[in-house]
Amino acid sequence: MKKLINQPENVVKEELEGIALAHPDLVKVHISPHYIVRADAPVKGKVALVSGGGSGHEPLHGGYVGMGMLDAACPGEVFTSPTPDQIYEATKAVSGGAGVLHIVKNYSGDVMNFEMAAELAQAEGIEVASVVTNDDVAVEDSLYTQGRRGVGVTVFVEKIAGAAAEAGLPLAKVAEIAKRVNENGRSMGMALTSCTVPVAGKPTFEIGDDEMEIGIGIHGEPGRTRMKIKPADEIVDMMAEAILGDLPFKSGDRVIAMVNGMGGTPLIELYIVYRRLAQICEGKGINIVRNLIGNYITSLEMAGTSITLLRADDELLKFWDAPVKTAALRWGV
Amino acid sequence: MKKLINQPENVVKEELEGIALAHPDLVKVHISPHYIVRADAPVKGKVALVSGGGSGHEPLHGGYVGMGMLDAACPGEVFTSPTPDQIYEATKAVSGGAGVLHIVKNYSGDVMNFEMAAELAQAEGIEVASVVTNDDVAVEDSLYTQGRRGVGVTVFVEKIAGAAAEAGLPLAKVAEIAKRVNENGRSMGMALTSCTVPVAGKPTFEIGDDEMEIGIGIHGEPGRTRMKIKPADEIVDMMAEAILGDLPFKSGDRVIAMVNGMGGTPLIELYIVYRRLAQICEGKGINIVRNLIGNYITSLEMAGTSITLLRADDELLKFWDAPVKTAALRWGV
Repeated sequence: MKKLINQPENVVKEELEGIALAHPDLVKVHISPHYIVRADAPVKGKVALVSGGGSGHEPLHGGYVGMGMLDAACPGEVFTSPTPDQIYEATKAVSGGAGVLHIVKNYSGDVMNFEMAAELAQAEGIEVASVVTNDDVAVEDSLYTQGRRGVGVTVFVEKIAGAAAEAGLPLAKVAEIAKRVNENGRSMGMALTSCTVPVAGKPTFEIGDDEMEIGIGIHGEPGRTRMKIKPADEIVDMMAEAILGDLPFKSGDRVIAMVNGMGGTPLIELYIVYRRLAQICEGKGINIVRNLIGNYITSLEMAGTSITLLRADDELLKFWDAPVKTAALRWGV
Repeated sequence: MKKLINQPENVVKEELEGIALAHPDLVKVHISPHYIVRADAPVKGKVALVSGGGSGHEPLHGGYVGMGMLDAACPGEVFTSPTPDQIYEATKAVSGGAGVLHIVKNYSGDVMNFEMAAELAQAEGIEVASVVTNDDVAVEDSLYTQGRRGVGVTVFVEKIAGAAAEAGLPLAKVAEIAKRVNENGRSMGMALTSCTVPVAGKPTFEIGDDEMEIGIGIHGEPGRTRMKIKPADEIVDMMAEAILGDLPFKSGDRVIAMVNGMGGTPLIELYIVYRRLAQICEGKGINIVRNLIGNYITSLEMAGTSITLLRADDELLKFWDAPVKTAALRWGV
């Protein structure tokens, strides 16, 4: 295992200490239990957004805490759900009296622990709504999931619902927008290599030197098929067909596109992926009106990519364009 | 070789096509010869900044073209200098009548080709000044370099001199600021793994499963020493000692710090590196006043990190904080 770490069991704690040292203007970091809140939390009268999940997907979620996006992120250990206690404490820390929205990727442990945390918070009079993301078209049910896995659309939910909350919308409306983003978003991933969880010390799965996994999950869960590597354009064709056919996306749709790196993929390759994706969408009359190209929801050092498309209406676009100031996503300020 | 590419010889061309499709609001891409200019080029009356070098270091340089930073980037093939023709054409395309600053990383081919391009442009009456970056403290002379290699400080030069040009300063002053940034910046890198140039098809160098290379160059050039992997804190201690002792940085200095990923390093590890760097600086009374943590000057999919520290005065900090709008660096707008 080749990693820039000290003790494997201290990776998340030391990452959080690094974040605290790097971004005191943006966030406050709580070490026991682990959570990150925006520096000015709680924001009185604003709906608060709390997300979280296993670590190893950075910048998700801690990199998205700040003005116009998340109020709190709860990082579990690498590829491990955060505990109800963590989520409950973070929920209390950011509650500003207007309710809290939990944004949960659809993994059984995450869903269960966010539900328990919501019940604890509600028992103390904090109103909590939840949205569960499940945008991965690759497989129905998976290693850690009932139904579809939640992946890239989570970034879009956090940005767009975050802007809606920042604009002062009430909890029910922010939750409705978050659900609308999830319902209109679809993703699929692929991997060329595995990744290694620090405390495991060995690759999560084995893959041949000439193989790739199409439909991989963000923890290395099996996808749709293992096959020989193909040229990038053919890979993107397969992924785009699965994504576009699922919603389905139609001619005239406006979409926000994300070409995401899994952590070990050079940016030069992501632009080659985006090139083909843009050609495909153009051929089908689908208009990519905004895009993100880079590492936004990763799987440690895995080489691979995922594509997320979000069909966006005027309201979603307006909130997408609204200012955001976080460690990993920033514009307009 | 596992890469998301089509034909290895088309990687740079297809990347550029992807950039053109992704960022028409920011840049215009010229395919033959390859160069990227900001969408509103030439900007009349403004000093224009042109940089470039081998591809494979993305987002450097193409990701830094836009308002407040570069006017043009000239990407060579992967790890190969751009040609004089490319640089000359880009220089002409962005010249707005106030002169052009060439920002050149210190590699013999880059230096020679930028010089030839400058002569061609000057023969047509375009005033050209040049700054050569040479911030890498690891080694004196190297595989492709006389003197020190130019690495991470180049990002700082492009941002800060870009803001100075945007503010309307004349060529001599913009060039002086660019040189001041280079003179006050120091870097060092390390690698856990090699990288593979697409047309080569095999790793640039061999490294053992338990080894690392301290002082690596951004093309995989040998560094100071090959040794067994150590804990992250010890690695950062070695790098920081080399960097801090070189200028030398002193108690009371204000610095901008970059912890850069080489392309295949998870962000979680870069924060562990930053944590130690911040502790070291604090212990020495050196005040990190701004930071960048992420992939800013990469070596394809290499796993590793580099640290750059820039001693910043009030003027450099003012231009660092000025608005910038590029694909890879954006704030204030």
